[in-house]
Amino acid sequence: MKNIYLDNQSNTKLDNNVLNAMMPFLVDCYGNPQSIYSLGAISKDALDTARFQVASLINADAKEITFTSCATESNNLIVKGIVESLKTKGKHIIVSSIEHFSILNPLKKLQNEGFEITYLPVDTKGNINAKELEKSLRKDTILVSIQHSNPEIGTVQNIKELVAIVKNSKINDFVVFHTDAVSSCGFVPVDVKDLNVDALTLSSSVIYGPKGVAALYVKKGIKVIPQIEGGVQENSKRSGTENVPAIVGFGKACQIAKTKLVSNAQKIKELRDILIKELPKRIEYIYLNGATTENRLPGNVNFSIEFVEGESLFLLLDAKGIMAASGSACANKNLKLSHVLSAINVDVAVGQGSIVFTLSKYNTKEEIDFVLEEFPKIVNRLREMSPLYSYFLETGKRKQAGPGTNFDQDHDHCHICEE
Amino acid sequence: MKNIYLDNQSNTKLDNNVLNAMMPFLVDCYGNPQSIYSLGAISKDALDTARFQVASLINADAKEITFTSCATESNNLIVKGIVESLKTKGKHIIVSSIEHFSILNPLKKLQNEGFEITYLPVDTKGNINAKELEKSLRKDTILVSIQHSNPEIGTVQNIKELVAIVKNSKINDFVVFHTDAVSSCGFVPVDVKDLNVDALTLSSSVIYGPKGVAALYVKKGIKVIPQIEGGVQENSKRSGTENVPAIVGFGKACQIAKTKLVSNAQKIKELRDILIKELPKRIEYIYLNGATTENRLPGNVNFSIEFVEGESLFLLLDAKGIMAASGSACANKNLKLSHVLSAINVDVAVGQGSIVFTLSKYNTKEEIDFVLEEFPKIVNRLREMSPLYSYFLETGKRKQAGPGTNFDQDHDHCHICEE
Repeated sequence: MKNIYLDNQSNTKLDNNVLNAMMPFLVDCYGNPQSIYSLGAISKDALDTARFQVASLINADAKEITFTSCATESNNLIVKGIVESLKTKGKHIIVSSIEHFSILNPLKKLQNEGFEITYLPVDTKGNINAKELEKSLRKDTILVSIQHSNPEIGTVQNIKELVAIVKNSKINDFVVFHTDAVSSCGFVPVDVKDLNVDALTLSSSVIYGPKGVAALYVKKGIKVIPQIEGGVQENSKRSGTENVPAIVGFGKACQIAKTKLVSNAQKIKELRDILIKELPKRIEYIYLNGATTENRLPGNVNFSIEFVEGESLFLLLDAKGIMAASGSACANKNLKLSHVLSAINVDVAVGQGSIVFTLSKYNTKEEIDFVLEEFPKIVNRLREMSPLYSYFLETGKRKQAGPGTNFDQDHDHCHICEE
Repeated sequence: MKNIYLDNQSNTKLDNNVLNAMMPFLVDCYGNPQSIYSLGAISKDALDTARFQVASLINADAKEITFTSCATESNNLIVKGIVESLKTKGKHIIVSSIEHFSILNPLKKLQNEGFEITYLPVDTKGNINAKELEKSLRKDTILVSIQHSNPEIGTVQNIKELVAIVKNSKINDFVVFHTDAVSSCGFVPVDVKDLNVDALTLSSSVIYGPKGVAALYVKKGIKVIPQIEGGVQENSKRSGTENVPAIVGFGKACQIAKTKLVSNAQKIKELRDILIKELPKRIEYIYLNGATTENRLPGNVNFSIEFVEGESLFLLLDAKGIMAASGSACANKNLKLSHVLSAINVDVAVGQGSIVFTLSKYNTKEEIDFVLEEFPKIVNRLREMSPLYSYFLETGKRKQAGPGTNFDQDHDHCHICEE
C-alpha cells in the first residue's frame, strides 16, 4: 500500500532535524523559562534563539514576534486585538472574501457589535483588484487583512502593492495592514520590511515544524490588546506556560525553511507543474482553479473534475494511498462548495468534484507518476457510475444542477479553466 | 552537581510512557484529524481516546471536554465565554482573592466594562469562608470561580460545600460554578459529578504530560461562547489545528495519573512531611505558609524565612542544584510579595524570604535529605550577611520594614506559623 501524502497545506510531516532539536526539551530541559534557576535559563535561551530564527525567516526583529498556539489564534489575536486597541478611532475593517475562517468568523461577531466589514471580491484567478481596495478605504478604517497567499487555490497576492495603496492613501494615521502568510512563509520569499506590512501571521505545522505553535509578527510601535491574559509570558502579549519544545521546533523549522527556500520551492514547483500539465491530458472536463503558474504557490494544485462527486473521489484516492483535500483543511469534512471556490466563481456542479493536491519537499517524482497513473482511472470509474455523465454522453448536454448553481449548461470549458 | 527539581507546580518532567505514546504522532501519524483519509482517521481516533482518558480522570463524559493550548487559555475561555453567554442576565462575578492571574486579569478588563467583581477573602490558611460566599451571592451573579487548590500555598478548598451553597441558594437558574483544578487533578481525587461543578480547568504540563495542551470541562447543557474562532475543531468550541501529539500525551498522562493517584500522592506526601517537620528543627524563624497538612496538596511546601532575601536564597539553592520557586510560576521573576501571600496576611518583610518546594513522583528521599542538609547552611550564610539579622541579634528587635509592611516588630513567631 502506497502512502502518498499530498495534503501539505493541512499539515506537514515533521522534519527529522526539527524533531532532533525538540527532543532535549521533551526529555531533560523541562524547566519553565520564567524561572530563574538554571533549568529555566536553558529554556529561556532556547526561546530567545527560536524567536530570532522565526523573525529571520521574515526579516523581522525578534522583539516583534509573539508566539501563539496556532495560526487561528494569531489571526484571532490581530483582529480582536486591533479592534480593542482602535475601536474608539473607527469601526471599519477590510478583508478579502477568500480569507481563512479564523479571520472571517471573528468578523461576524464584530458585525453584530456595529463594525462594518468590506469583503473585497477577487477575480477568477483569486486576485484582489488594487483599485477595489483603494475605493473601499475610509477615514474610519482600522484594519485591512489580506492573505499573502491562498492555501486552497494557490494565488499569491501582490501584498507590497496593496500595502502601498493603503499607506499612500493617507486616509488616517492608524490603519493597520495585516497579512495571513501561513501558506507563503517557507515557500515564497516573505520580507516584512520590503512588504511594509504592520502585522503578519505565520505557522509551524505547514513548514515541517511541530503542531501547537504559530506566531504573530507585529511591527514595533503598534499596539495589539492581548486576548489571552494571565502571567507575564511573551512580554504579557500572550500569557500561558510557553510550549518550549514546540517553539524550539518552530525556530528550527524556520531556520531550515530559510536556508532551503529556493531549492525546495524549485523542486516542489517542478512536481506541481507535472500534475498541472499532465492531468488535463489524461482527464477530460478537468479545470484548474486559481492562479496562473507564475503567480501560484509552488506546491498548490487545485482541479475541478466534472461529473464526479468529491467525496467518492477522495475515498478512492485514499484507497490507493493518495491523500488529498477539498478546499481548506478546516472545512473539508463539508463537501459543499468552499467559500474560496465560490469567490472565484466556480460553477457549483463542477466545483463539487474539486480536489486540492498540496506538495511538500518529501514528495517524489515517483509519487507524482503514481497519481498520474491512478487518478484518471479513478475518475473514469466514477464517471461510469454517474447518471449525469451518461446523460451528457447521450445528449451532449449537461443536466441542470441543484439550487444556487451558476452552472452554464452550454459551456464545454469552464470559465475558470486556464486553457 | 545535583539536579534536584522541586518546582513541579511550574512544570513537571515528561513521563517516559507519555513520550512513548506521543512519538508515533510526532513522527509518522501527522494527519489532520479533520481530514477524511486514513492518516487523518488515525489522528481522529487518537483524539477520541485522549478525550476519554482526560474525561475519566475527573469522572466527566468525553463530550464535556474541550482541549485548549494551556490552562491560562481554559481559564480565560470560561470567564469570557460565560460573560458573553450570560451578560444579558447579569453583571456580577465572584472569585476568590487567591485565584491564578489567568482568572484575575481578565476580570480587570470586565470591571472597566461595567461588571462587578466580588473578591472573596481567605483566612490565614487560605480557606474560603462558606458564609462569605453565601453573603456575596446576588440575583445577577453569573459566574463563581474558585480554585480547587492553590499551587502556591497548597490549600485544598471544600469545593463540594461551596458548590452546594451556590446551588442551594437558588439565587437564579443560570449561575455557573467553575473551579480551576490545575494543581489538584492527578494529585487529589477530583470528581466533577460528586463536586457538582459546572466547569473545571485541568492541565497537562503539571501531571507529567506535555506542554501546549490543557482542557476545559463544561457540563452538558451549559453554553460557553468560543473565544478562538475559525474552523470546526473541538466541535467549534475551540478552533485551530489540533495539537495531536500533545493531546495524545495529555490523555496518557491522565490515564497514568488516575491509576497511580493514591500511591503517588502517598509517596509525595511523605517527602513533603519530612520537609515540613524537619526544616523548622534546623532553621529558626521559619514559618509554614498556607494549609494544614491534612488539607494541603500532597506535594506543596511553602515557607517564609525571616532575615533572608528571596532572590539570594534561590540563587544559592540553584548553585547547589536545588530548583524551587517563589510564589506562582508566572510571577516568580517578580520578588515582591505574591498576591496569595498577601491574601493570607503574611508580613511583607517575612514574606520576602518565602520559598515554595513542589514535589513530584520523581523526587527521592535522598534528594530531600540533601535539601535538609544544604538549605539550613544557605540560610545561615545569608543571615551572616544580613544587617537586619545582626540588628535583631544585637537588640532582640526587628527593624521596621519598608512602606506597606504589616510587620509586627515584637512577635517572635509569625501568626501564620503553625507552631
